[in-house]
Amino acid sequence: MIRLENIHLYTGEAAFENGCVVVDGDRILYAGEWDGCPAGRYDSIDGRGGIVMPGLYNAHCHAAMTLERGVGSDLHLMDWLNQVFPIEANLKERDVYDGTKLAILEMIRRGVVSFADMYYFMDEVARAVEETGIRANLCRGCSDLQGVDSISALKDAWDGKANGRIRISMGLHAEYTSTMDVAQYAAQKAREWGLSAHIHLAETRSETMGCMERHGCTPAEYFRRVGMFDVPTICAHCVYMTDEDMGILASHGASAIHNPTSNLKLASGIAKVTHLMEKGVNVALGTDGPSSNNVLDLMAEMKLASILQKGALEDPTVLNAHDALKMATLNGAKAMGFADCGVLAPGKKADLILVNDETLAICPDIPAELVYCAQGLDVTLTMVDGRILYRDGEFMTLDPKETVARAMEAYRSLMRA
Amino acid sequence: MIRLENIHLYTGEAAFENGCVVVDGDRILYAGEWDGCPAGRYDSIDGRGGIVMPGLYNAHCHAAMTLERGVGSDLHLMDWLNQVFPIEANLKERDVYDGTKLAILEMIRRGVVSFADMYYFMDEVARAVEETGIRANLCRGCSDLQGVDSISALKDAWDGKANGRIRISMGLHAEYTSTMDVAQYAAQKAREWGLSAHIHLAETRSETMGCMERHGCTPAEYFRRVGMFDVPTICAHCVYMTDEDMGILASHGASAIHNPTSNLKLASGIAKVTHLMEKGVNVALGTDGPSSNNVLDLMAEMKLASILQKGALEDPTVLNAHDALKMATLNGAKAMGFADCGVLAPGKKADLILVNDETLAICPDIPAELVYCAQGLDVTLTMVDGRILYRDGEFMTLDPKETVARAMEAYRSLMRA
Repeated sequence: MIRLENIHLYTGEAAFENGCVVVDGDRILYAGEWDGCPAGRYDSIDGRGGIVMPGLYNAHCHAAMTLERGVGSDLHLMDWLNQVFPIEANLKERDVYDGTKLAILEMIRRGVVSFADMYYFMDEVARAVEETGIRANLCRGCSDLQGVDSISALKDAWDGKANGRIRISMGLHAEYTSTMDVAQYAAQKAREWGLSAHIHLAETRSETMGCMERHGCTPAEYFRRVGMFDVPTICAHCVYMTDEDMGILASHGASAIHNPTSNLKLASGIAKVTHLMEKGVNVALGTDGPSSNNVLDLMAEMKLASILQKGALEDPTVLNAHDALKMATLNGAKAMGFADCGVLAPGKKADLILVNDETLAICPDIPAELVYCAQGLDVTLTMVDGRILYRDGEFMTLDPKETVARAMEAYRSLMRA
Repeated sequence: MIRLENIHLYTGEAAFENGCVVVDGDRILYAGEWDGCPAGRYDSIDGRGGIVMPGLYNAHCHAAMTLERGVGSDLHLMDWLNQVFPIEANLKERDVYDGTKLAILEMIRRGVVSFADMYYFMDEVARAVEETGIRANLCRGCSDLQGVDSISALKDAWDGKANGRIRISMGLHAEYTSTMDVAQYAAQKAREWGLSAHIHLAETRSETMGCMERHGCTPAEYFRRVGMFDVPTICAHCVYMTDEDMGILASHGASAIHNPTSNLKLASGIAKVTHLMEKGVNVALGTDGPSSNNVLDLMAEMKLASILQKGALEDPTVLNAHDALKMATLNGAKAMGFADCGVLAPGKKADLILVNDETLAICPDIPAELVYCAQGLDVTLTMVDGRILYRDGEFMTLDPKETVARAMEAYRSLMRA
């Protein structure tokens, strides 16, 4: 059993100045006041006065796009895609494995314990997840019937594997990249195979207007009609949503994933996060892919989500530190379907991080310090499923030099192709 | 002479895949292609493949507010001030010295080479600047005649000192915190003493509307009338500006300082940065004080400035990586009146940083990598005036433990008072 000592603690529900966390196998045994910690024989970890909190759940990503990072910056979406697509057309299985491992390295370093990924060659992504110890909900971004059928094998091979760290979802890229037949088929197969789903929803104004023209309804209403929301669904972006759309997500238990950096960088718009929450939607946070961000730092998304909503609504009291922390942790775990994750309490999965800043000091308010002061690179320990994956510069399941070198080689060979 | 080798280089004007910088005393001797580097005897620094760029110029700060970091988060401006003011009322000289040193520690760690500060007990701030080796433009946030008079002694003691690293400005807090007599007197004394100025300008809608009621004109027109813009002026915030206001700043050579995090967090609004630039205003970047941010990370401000403007204008091509880098470097140096700073070229001051990320990789575009991928904590070397102040975890002019401990003690004693 591992005991984290000499720590401040934010459990997701309460903060403790003098806290303690005990981990037994893959579960939390105790998380609370130091004085109440049960006696026992422990491997002690000195937190050096840092803050322990639940790990970060990155609920929308295209991890292997590390290989396209920085391609086509400062361009309109279509100009950017015209630079990205030729590269992606040449992607091989091994490239996706190498690009995903680079993304996982980057995420573990910054306290991300789980990610929801939509990309190609998802067997390779699952292999990278299994080997590196991170948690993930994986899907292909399908756009045709064949793609939907291929999820069956992916599910059989990986769903629930690695001590439950891997979940497979039905992925449908978006309304505008497939026909209604395909969307209906994907929804039907998701129900049949007992899978949740992952889609892009109402990311841009043109997508939303286009859906109105094509189908006479909003993207959210479209996905309700095809039956996608009959299963729990990760809806990435949700920038252009009516009150009715929000009601559809809330009543079906679908999750809205806010990607503030990507939405600003691609000039998509600012999602009405506070409004979505008021309507009862589970709102979580995502980095989107590294080529529209360009770094997989959910701590940065958490701060940006909070201050951007304050600025957009001209009200500094909205999306306070507690709300922001919940979006980045419990709500993300819920969106990905990891029921035992996202909060530090007895019996829950031991997905946690230690935040330990050297040069910052003085913040009388632990949630405010985590949201407004702490930065992804302040993370000094990342634990997933009770296993330490990163501590003080050392990666337990990845060789950083080799990971970077292999991804660079994949990138160079893509550029030559 | 120091030679930085094995580096990518962004000089502020051009990027080099295989670059080299030679520093002779406090100046750059060479910055360019490795192949063109002059022969000589050097102390070599291995940049390990990182990027060297001009250091970051934080053009609006209240550094010692580290002591109020996290006080009153998620509150309206007046509620927040009501928590901050009682603490500030008890501030003693030594507190400001200790709080400023904590801020400098934090800034040097994140690549800030110079800051423009407005606070109290500025002799203490100057002492901290002199001792730590950073560069600064310092002023008191005056609101009465006595305060204005006190700048004379500050100027005599510090202006141009420490090899020119310290400049003193006339500070006037804002239109709404002083009378027109005081503003006119401050402007007159700034001219008489040959000082530049530093003010808050059009930060909030209520301030701007209030000025219209009080004086029948915008804050920018008010400061033009009292003669403040007869000297080069640092204008912090500039959120609510008409085209005419922008014209006033441009024609007088005043600088607008964009503080995107603070403006969002306090829900002040979003400055029209691109518009200000188009009108010919020198626009630089600031962190504002650490209690409305809450971290002094200009690299984060640079990224946020760029993506926020794209999002606000719904155009991903605006405020591109080059523009953002210029705001954070050359424009900041200009705003602070450091004429030989902000670009890496022969004869310029050697204010530079090395950015070296371990877990990021692949970005074919150096400016895009610096703006969209790099983070403040990726800085591994900070040099000011030819002197290395930080390298690979080591601070040459500050003891981090002692600095944090003294600031914590100052905070605790303020809370007891």
